[in-house]
Parts: sequence; structure tokens; C-alpha cells
Amino acid sequence: MATISETGGKDLRHGLGIAPDAAAATIDIATLVGVLGAFLVIGAAMVLGGSPGSFIDLPAILIVFGGTFLVTTVSFTLAEVAHAQRVMLRAVVYHAESPRNAALRTLRLADIARQKGPVVLEDELGSFHHSRFLSEAISLVIDGFPAEEIERILSRESHATSLRHLRSAGVLRRAGEVAPAMGLIGTLVGLVQMLGNLQDPSAIGPAMAVALLTTFYGAVLANMVFHPLATKLERNSEVEAMVQHIYTIGAASISRQENPRRLEMTLNAILSPVQRVSYFD
Amino acid sequence: MATISETGGKDLRHGLGIAPDAAAATIDIATLVGVLGAFLVIGAAMVLGGSPGSFIDLPAILIVFGGTFLVTTVSFTLAEVAHAQRVMLRAVVYHAESPRNAALRTLRLADIARQKGPVVLEDELGSFHHSRFLSEAISLVIDGFPAEEIERILSRESHATSLRHLRSAGVLRRAGEVAPAMGLIGTLVGLVQMLGNLQDPSAIGPAMAVALLTTFYGAVLANMVFHPLATKLERNSEVEAMVQHIYTIGAASISRQENPRRLEMTLNAILSPVQRVSYFD
Amino acid sequence: MATISETGGKDLRHGLGIAPDAAAATIDIATLVGVLGAFLVIGAAMVLGGSPGSFIDLPAILIVFGGTFLVTTVSFTLAEVAHAQRVMLRAVVYHAESPRNAALRTLRLADIARQKGPVVLEDELGSFHHSRFLSEAISLVIDGFPAEEIERILSRESHATSLRHLRSAGVLRRAGEVAPAMGLIGTLVGLVQMLGNLQDPSAIGPAMAVALLTTFYGAVLANMVFHPLATKLERNSEVEAMVQHIYTIGAASISRQENPRRLEMTLNAILSPVQRVSYFD
Amino acid sequence: MATISETGGKDLRHGLGIAPDAAAATIDIATLVGVLGAFLVIGAAMVLGGSPGSFIDLPAILIVFGGTFLVTTVSFTLAEVAHAQRVMLRAVVYHAESPRNAALRTLRLADIARQKGPVVLEDELGSFHHSRFLSEAISLVIDGFPAEEIERILSRESHATSLRHLRSAGVLRRAGEVAPAMGLIGTLVGLVQMLGNLQDPSAIGPAMAVALLTTFYGAVLANMVFHPLATKLERNSEVEAMVQHIYTIGAASISRQENPRRLEMTLNAILSPVQRVSYFD
Amino acid sequence: MATISETGGKDLRHGLGIAPDAAAATIDIATLVGVLGAFLVIGAAMVLGGSPGSFIDLPAILIVFGGTFLVTTVSFTLAEVAHAQRVMLRAVVYHAESPRNAALRTLRLADIARQKGPVVLEDELGSFHHSRFLSEAISLVIDGFPAEEIERILSRESHATSLRHLRSAGVLRRAGEVAPAMGLIGTLVGLVQMLGNLQDPSAIGPAMAVALLTTFYGAVLANMVFHPLATKLERNSEVEAMVQHIYTIGAASISRQENPRRLEMTLNAILSPVQRVSYFD
Repeated sequence: MATISETGGKDLRHGLGIAPDAAAATIDIATLVGVLGAFLVIGAAMVLGGSPGSFIDLPAILIVFGGTFLVTTVSFTLAEVAHAQRVMLRAVVYHAESPRNAALRTLRLADIARQKGPVVLEDELGSFHHSRFLSEAISLVIDGFPAEEIERILSRESHATSLRHLRSAGVLRRAGEVAPAMGLIGTLVGLVQMLGNLQDPSAIGPAMAVALLTTFYGAVLANMVFHPLATKLERNSEVEAMVQHIYTIGAASISRQENPRRLEMTLNAILSPVQRVSYFD
Repeated sequence: MATISETGGKDLRHGLGIAPDAAAATIDIATLVGVLGAFLVIGAAMVLGGSPGSFIDLPAILIVFGGTFLVTTVSFTLAEVAHAQRVMLRAVVYHAESPRNAALRTLRLADIARQKGPVVLEDELGSFHHSRFLSEAISLVIDGFPAEEIERILSRESHATSLRHLRSAGVLRRAGEVAPAMGLIGTLVGLVQMLGNLQDPSAIGPAMAVALLTTFYGAVLANMVFHPLATKLERNSEVEAMVQHIYTIGAASISRQENPRRLEMTLNAILSPVQRVSYFD
Repeated sequence: MATISETGGKDLRHGLGIAPDAAAATIDIATLVGVLGAFLVIGAAMVLGGSPGSFIDLPAILIVFGGTFLVTTVSFTLAEVAHAQRVMLRAVVYHAESPRNAALRTLRLADIARQKGPVVLEDELGSFHHSRFLSEAISLVIDGFPAEEIERILSRESHATSLRHLRSAGVLRRAGEVAPAMGLIGTLVGLVQMLGNLQDPSAIGPAMAVALLTTFYGAVLANMVFHPLATKLERNSEVEAMVQHIYTIGAASISRQENPRRLEMTLNAILSPVQRVSYFD
Repeated sequence: MATISETGGKDLRHGLGIAPDAAAATIDIATLVGVLGAFLVIGAAMVLGGSPGSFIDLPAILIVFGGTFLVTTVSFTLAEVAHAQRVMLRAVVYHAESPRNAALRTLRLADIARQKGPVVLEDELGSFHHSRFLSEAISLVIDGFPAEEIERILSRESHATSLRHLRSAGVLRRAGEVAPAMGLIGTLVGLVQMLGNLQDPSAIGPAMAVALLTTFYGAVLANMVFHPLATKLERNSEVEAMVQHIYTIGAASISRQENPRRLEMTLNAILSPVQRVSYFD
Repeated sequence: MATISETGGKDLRHGLGIAPDAAAATIDIATLVGVLGAFLVIGAAMVLGGSPGSFIDLPAILIVFGGTFLVTTVSFTLAEVAHAQRVMLRAVVYHAESPRNAALRTLRLADIARQKGPVVLEDELGSFHHSRFLSEAISLVIDGFPAEEIERILSRESHATSLRHLRSAGVLRRAGEVAPAMGLIGTLVGLVQMLGNLQDPSAIGPAMAVALLTTFYGAVLANMVFHPLATKLERNSEVEAMVQHIYTIGAASISRQENPRRLEMTLNAILSPVQRVSYFD
């Protein structure tokens, strides 16, 4: 199923051009299936145990969900925390281009520039509306910047983009640290209340159960939501950095008027074996 | 609400100049709301549980609050620990300039210098009373230092400033490590006292409750105060380093008498998409 | 027993050439014996305890095995998780060449190139079907690339390969973090259910036992399967990087037409004492 | 109170020269007050609980204090562990020079060298008996070494000094890791003995109390002694590295016969705002 | 007592030459005393508790000792795990040369080379049978390699040696992580068995005691054997790297025909104050 987002790339081996919808929004099946599936499994265990209702307690929800949101907010700005929620969605609905597709696109541009001159690339600019980075890279080539300058500008921008993405993932990562801490604090509140009030032995069990619920919520939030999504975002950021690295190498190569076959060799050296391209054959 | 501190920057898109009050003291709403809100949530859970008074115990407060202060002091100097308390306030009342505003201010200065010569910048020096770093940067340009020298001096100063900020955040970070440890030590003291004195079973529960209070205090102090504020300070320091980086690039560019449009491109490459500026249009 | 995979290298001291089957699939005895042996030990302890059946509980298996698979999937793609399973097998059936064998092979090629010219190496290309990297290295030499260029291309490729291997090991590493977390979540579910239902004291023990099973499964999966195999993969990746480093040095040396005795000295400097080669004696 | 060690520096603003006793032994009040205060707080909690004697148990002391000493010794040499005890004292009685004072001293030497030539500095050598590093730096200048050579030699020495200090702090850091581990081992010994001997219920409580004492000792040793002192030593080492960095910059500047005003600017760039010097005004 | 291995170095201050037995096998007293002493302390606590026999349980030993060996084996090869056992011995019987002694030996060779020419060093080669690295360094000098080449070759070899040593220490480090995990797994097996079988209350205590034994074994193995020895090995590796660094600097200096007095100054800059040498006085 994961091949949905990679179909474009694989078809290319037998096709003619570059996947036109490579950068359209696709649903990241792995993320969706993973999160929903894990919650289903835990939910099934609750229902099989007989009393799923005993896992819902409003004060516990308030402490863990509200507390995690508020404490995470302290370390950032309200705008960043709101942004992190959009970013969590982005981990599910995922706009991305595969490195293989980026390499093919780069080689096609290099081929065109080789045959008709870099100025012709201006006609191609309109088709890059999905990748601002590629547009900028090609614009720099057309404007005649030297290759070193192009590499310097694009590397700096790519680096800044990675830092921004890591900061967004950092909000989730931080929330994943805060959630178990709030769970512990809630459990301690419940334990202190229960221990100060031991007259009725039959109430001890349910009180303990409620006290443990905050620890449970914290563990679920951190381990089944925040940390997995943060890891996903970091990984997506790595793929995007790879794609931007490919475009940077490509733009510098076109600017140097290198042989595109040499560019193909350079790109294949950083692509994984299954992603390697053979444009010129 | 977080937009309060960013309103200046956003208005600029439609306005004429640079936010005049960009560096005035603004209250960091996210920090204030986050800390107060989290304490309200925990307080509400205590009140709902029926006996909020059982969460206050003087020896426990002495062990955790006093012990954390004293043990943290060991690793630093009294002056640094006192400074850390001012620094905690600074996380709430926050003087800062947005990178976007710094970029606009830099471009305006570069534009003036381009049109009337760097010496005219002397007239502008008075308006930088909010940013000692910018004053120094412009003074170096006016004094005719070469661009590499300016970059070297300012980078070194910016680096030293970051190190100092990280050290301040380090005091809070350390306090956040000490607090749970003092909580554990207090709970062990309570447990040993209780276990050596088990004759009266009805006293076990309340004694356990009091023993757990130090762990509770330690968890609250570390996770709801020290660690979030330390992260906030580290983040503020990153923003300030970014602003100083922009001023450094700008001063070097003015000194090199580069075209300000080129400076705009360089600055936009390190600004996030929503912060990008278009001064020359 | 571990010498099975190293026999080739050791025989060479008394033999004539390079182990022809050095890169054939060999079973990694240490991995196989280690994993099976550890499970046997734990299994024996269960059987000696009298009731091995009490260690099997379907909901617990569902939570830990299913949950770990699903939550790990969130952070990657379905393709990567499927690939990680092939990669786990690769930790047992292990195609690899020892650094010593790679050094001998490199020296033989350098010797041939010295005596008959680099072009003759083309005849050898067919015998490298087990090592794509060596084929590429020699092709670059034959195509007459300068030594610096060869080093740059091969280093970049070797670096990219290492990153890919680390990412595969990262899937297992991540699964090793998720498994104990799912075990904790399962135990909390069991504890909450048990505590809410304390009427029948005789049921408490078995209910606790079942609740602890998820923690047990999580600890076994993480500590006896995922983390050891991830460490193994990282280690295999280091050995492969070493072999590729040897081939890179060799190809550059051949391209520079250096004396093979000098190459031998360079290679021995990075080989461990027991792996050192003395080809020219 | 912490100003005791900084009084010299602050008086200088109104004074004429450099604090003559800057490097004399001063008691580090923060360390002394912190450690003693924290022990007083814990002691008070024990006394208030009624039976301070129950916190003293000879076998527990033997396991934690003796065991921590012995196990820490394994990782180092007897000489290093003995040295670490002197080093712990050094964290209380602390010989140090403030960066501000070092900067003033450096500027005075640069001023003298500028006016009377570097050879005159020989007369000053005698007054540096408190700082071997400064003596060496000035000797190199007098001997006429080129500035790059001076920087290289002094940086290497400063780096080696930092490494040695970090190694000393590492002994305490390691002891801080071993102490809680020995506490856990002691508690496990106590628990196994207690559980194998449950006939007398009235003995369970006191036995548990004794078992917990080793955990208590381990937590106190690690969190109130070893880790805080290790952090202090690391911090002192940073201050000393800063002072040596100032002397290195100064010696190179004198050797280059730079204008001392320029040196002042360079030094102020790395000093914190409150430490800045204005020697030439 | 630790001075046994350092006596050579200290006597030299009053002696004439370099300690002839500096590299002979000496017993590392700190390691021996530390490990045996710690086990004696724990053993005494067991005996004082009355029933040392209750700390021995065959299935528990099988799970922790056997399991740790097997799981550690998974991550390495059988050869490496066997090697790690020899390496553990090496932490007790320790062949090493002090940096001070290495510096003196280097200065003597530099002095000889200065007076009689580098070729005379050939006569000295025979006396370095204890240090293969020094032999190689001097051979490179005699063979007339340029200083940069000598530095490059020796640095690479020293780096490779350090990596190998760290890998050996890594086997122990890994075993130190596995042992507590196997202890936890064993305790969980014991708890599940006990909880499923609560009919006889008098058996609960002893069953819990046995269950805790695996945790106890794991804590002892990790904290009193594996981690301390791994730290020791890493530290020994650092000392050896320092000695090799001294020989590298020395060989390059001899090759450059520098004044040995200058070499002495360079070496003293990286030696600690108590190890400094004054060969030429």
C-alpha cells in the first residue's frame, strides 16, 4: 500500500517522462493505518476487559490533555503550538516528491539546458508550481549566477528549511516529554487524595484505578501520538532535504554546463540502489 | 494572542516603515498563560478531590524548595542563582525583535548607505538604543573596518552572547534535575520514618501521603516550571542569535557596498517563508 | 564457531590467493545461537516454574506485537517496515567480506595494474559480481578518472550507503523503544481493569499476572530481539564501510599509479594487527 | 555574599589598577552554603520525624560509601581517586581569577609593551607567580616567537588543561553514577533477606526501612554531593579556559604589536556586558 | 599503591635514563582491589543478614549470566565476545607506558638523532620490542619519509587502534546494558509464576525473593563488573592514544630535524604539570 506514493517513481522505469502528480497531496497510509490501528488494538483490549467506560475520567483528561497543551505552550509561542497542530495533520496528508523523481526531473532540465541553452529553462518555470525550491534554483541558473554562488545560496536555504522543520517536530517531541510528566503528576495527586482517605477499603481499588488513568493517558499520548509523529516529521524533513540537495547539485551542474551524463553519475552515487535512475540510455 | 508580539511585523507588509516599538517590553502571553493555566488545572483537580489542604506540608516544602535552591547553588555562584531568578522573569516579560523586523531595519540602513554613503548612518545610531548589537555593528561600518573583520568581531560577540544565555538557561535546567531528586530523597525520608513506626495502621495512609508530597512537589517544580522555562530561554536565545546573524550579514554587506537587493535575497534565504521581506518593490 | 565466516581470511596466510567464496552467503552463527539460546534459557525458566501456559495471553500478544508493529509503522512507510523484516533476516544470513580479504583483493588488483596496466583490470571486472562497489571503483579507474575524483565519488557513495543502513537499523531501534512502551500501556490497561473490580480477592493474582505479561513481552521483544539485532546491523554496516574504504583507497592508489608496496603499508595502518596482510614478501 | 570573590573586579571600576589578590585563595561561599544548607534541611526533616537514629545503619553505610569508593576506583587509578578528593576540596576553596581581571591585566601588559617594548615585560614576570599560564605566555612573547606559534602553543596547553580538569570532574561524575547503583544493590540485598524471612510480621516494617536506607544514602551522595560538585568543577574549568583564552589573545596581540585599544575591543567582544573593561579612557 | 605503575616515571626525576621496565606487565592494583573489595562488601552484607545461601538460585543464574552472554553475542561475533573476556583480564594485568616515560624516551631519541644523525636510530630499534608503534614511527623516520607523511600514517594508525579498543570496551558496555534487562525479564517471569499461584500465602515471600534475585544479579554484573571495566578500558585507551600522540609528534620532529629543546616544549604543553619533563637541563 505504501507504493501509492511511490507508484509514480516506479512507473517511470517503463514510462517516458516524470510523474506529473508526484508532488500532489497523497495520504500517508502508513501514518494513518498505524495511529488508527494502534488505537483500535488498545480499544479492543479495553472492551474485552468488560468495562471500557472505566477508562474515561474527566479530571484525568483535563490534567493530561490540558496540562500537556499548556506546559508545552510555555516553551514556545501560541502561534507555534497552533502551527504544530497543522504540522501533525501534515504527517498524515503528505505533499512530497521522491528523490528518484527529483533526480529524473533534474536530469531532464539538464538535458534541455545542454541542448537549447539555459535560457530555455524559463519556459519550464511555470511547471514547478509545486516546488518553490526548484523554481528558485532554476531562476538562479537563468540569472547567470556562478555555480559556487548558487550552491551557497541554495545550501543555506535548504539548511534553514531543515532547521524550521526540526523546530516544528521539536514542539511534538516536547509534548511527548511533557505528557508522561503530567500523567505522573496526576497520579501523585490521586494517590495523595486516596491515601489521606483510607477509611472505606472498598473505595481504594477504584480510587487507585482513577489515579492510574492519568499515567495511562500520558503514556498513550506520548508513545502512540507525539513521539511517532515527531519521528515521522523528522524523517519527512530528511527526504525533503535530500530532494533539495539533488536540486542544488543539479542547478550547480547546469550552471557549470557539465555533461548531464556526469550529473547522472553524481546523483546515482547518493541515491539508494532501488532509486537509481538511468535517463540517458 | 501570540500575535501581539508579532503584530508589528505583520502590519509592515501593508505599512511604510519598521515597527517602532518592536523591541519594547511585551508580555509573553504563551509563557504566562501556560504556567498559570497548568497550575490552575492541577489546583482544580486538588479542589475537586475534596481536601486541597492535604497537599500542603511545611517540611516537604522545605526539603524540595529549599533543597533544590541550595543544591543548585552548589554548582554555580550565589550571583548566578540570583540572576537566574531575574532570567525566569525575562521569560515572561520579553524584550525581543522579530527576525523579519530586523531584516527590514537592515535593508533600510543598507538602502540609506547605498544612496547617501555609510557616514550618514551615524545619524541613525541614536534610534538603536534598544539594540546594543546593532549600534556596534553600524559603528564598525562607519569606522571603516573591512567586511571580514566586521563579520569576525560580530560573530565572536554573538557566539559569546549565546553561550551566556545558555549558561543562564543551564541554571534552570540544573534546578529541573535537582528538584525530582530532592523529591525522591524526601519521600525516602518519609518512608523510612513510616516503616519504622507501623504500630498504628490508621496512620500509615496519611504518613504515605505526606511522604509522596515531596515527590509531587519535585515533579511539579521540574516539569511545570524549570524545564519549560529553560526551553523557552533557549528558544529566545536562538531567535536573538538569528537577529544578530541578520545584523552581522547586513553590516558586512553595507561595508562591502553590495547592492541592497542582493542583501535582500541573502536575508530571505535564511528567513522562514512567512517572515520573508520584499523591501524593494 | 565464529571462525566459519573468517576461515577464508585465516587460511589465506598459508594459501595462495584470495578466498573465492569470501562474499558468499554465510550464516551468522553468533546471531543465530544468541537469539535462539536466549529464548531457550527463558523458556526453560518458564517450564521449570511449572506452568508455561500462563505466559501466553492473546490480548497481551495483540497489544504488544500488534501495537509495536503499528506504532513503528507510523514513523516510517509500510515499505520501510517490510524492508526492516528482510533486514532482520540479513542479520542472520550475512553476505560479507572481511577487511583482510578486501585488502588482499585490492593489492592483487594493484599488482596486476602495476605490471600490465590499468586496462587489464577490465578482464577482472567479471569476477566482482559479489561486490557492486568494487566493480564501480575499478570501472572509474579504467575510465581514467583522476584519483581525487574517484575518491570523491566513492566516498560519497559509501557515505550514502552507510546512511541507508543506519536508517534500516533505525527502524529496529525505534521498534525497540516502542515495545516496552506498549508493554507499559498494556499493563496499565490490565491494572485499571483489575482495580475497578476487586470484589473477588482470588482473581487479583491471576489478573495481575496477565497485566504483567505485556510488560514481559515488551521487555523480551526490545532487549532480546530488536536492540541486539539493531546493534548487529550497525556493526555490519561499519565492517562494510571499512571494506568500501579499503576499495576507495585502493582505487585511488591504482589511479595514481603508486607503488603497491606503499598501498600495502597504507592499508595495514588501518587494519587491526590480526588482519594485517603481507602480500609482497 | 558571592560578591566576595568578585569584589576585586567590581572595585576596579573606581580603582586604578588590577586587583592584587584576585588569585588568592577565596572560599567559595555558594558551594559551602549549598552543601551544608542542604544537609541541614534533610537533617531537620529527620529530627522533626522523631527518630534520627533510625537513619544510621552500619552495613548500609558500608555498602554505599565503601562500595561507591571501591567501584569508582576500578575505573581509575588509586592516585586519581585520591586526587579527586583534593579536587572536591578545591571546589570549596577556590583559587581563581575573574575574566574581567585577566582582561585588565592583559591590557596593562599590552600598554607597557606598546610604550616601552616587549622586553620590559620581563620585569613583570615576577608578579605572575599566581598564574603559570600567564608567565608562559609572556615568556613566549619575550622570546620573540611569532604570534601564530604563540597562539598554537598556548591553545594546545589550554586544551590539555581543560581535558585534565574534565577528567577530574569525571571521577566525581562516575561516583555520582555508582552511588545510586550501590544503593539499589543494597536495597535488593535487604529485600531478599526480608522476603525469605516473613514469619514475624512486626519485623517487616523495620527491615524494609533498613533496606531503603541504602537507596537513601545513594540518592543523597549522588544528588547532594557528587553531581553538584562535578558540575561546579566543570564550570570552574570553563572560567579558567576563558581566562587562558584572554591571555592567549593578549600574548598574540602583543607579539603582533597591535594597538592595545584594538585588543580592548577584541576582549570586550568575548566578555559579558557586566565584565566589560574600559582601560583606555 | 597505584604508584607501582608510576614509580618508574617518578624515579626518573632523580635518575638518569628512562624506566627500562616501563612497559612490562604490571598488575593494575586499583582494578583488582576495587572489584574484589566491592564483592567482599556485598558478601559481608549477605553473611551479616544471616542466610547467604538464599542469594544463590540456579535458574536465576542461568537467566542472567547465560542470557547476558547470549544476547551480547547476538550483537557481535563469537570471536569478539571471546576477545572481550581476554580484554577484561587486560584491565587487571595492564601493559602500559606512562606519557611522561614516552616523552623522555622520545627526547632521548631526538637527542641521539640530533647528535649522530637519524640513521643511528636503527641501533635503538631492538630496544622497542615492547612498543610496536614506536618501532614503526622510528622506521618511518629512518626510511626518510617526509614529516607530513609520517604524521599522516601514524595518526591514521593511532586512530584505528583507538577505534578497535573502543569496540572492545563496547562489548562490555553492551553487556552492562543487557544484564539489568535480563534481570528484569527474569523477575517478571518469577512474578507471573508467583501471582498465578497465590493459594499458599507462606510461599509468597520466598517466591518474591527468588524473583528479585535476577534483578540483583543483573545490577551487580552491570554496575560492579561490566560498566567499571568498560570505563577502565576506555581510560587505558586514552592513555595509549596520548603515548602514541607523543611518539607521532616526536617522529615528525626528528624527521624535520627540529631542535630537541623545541620538541621538549611542545611535549610539555600537552603533558599534565606533574608529568612534565626537563630532559635538557
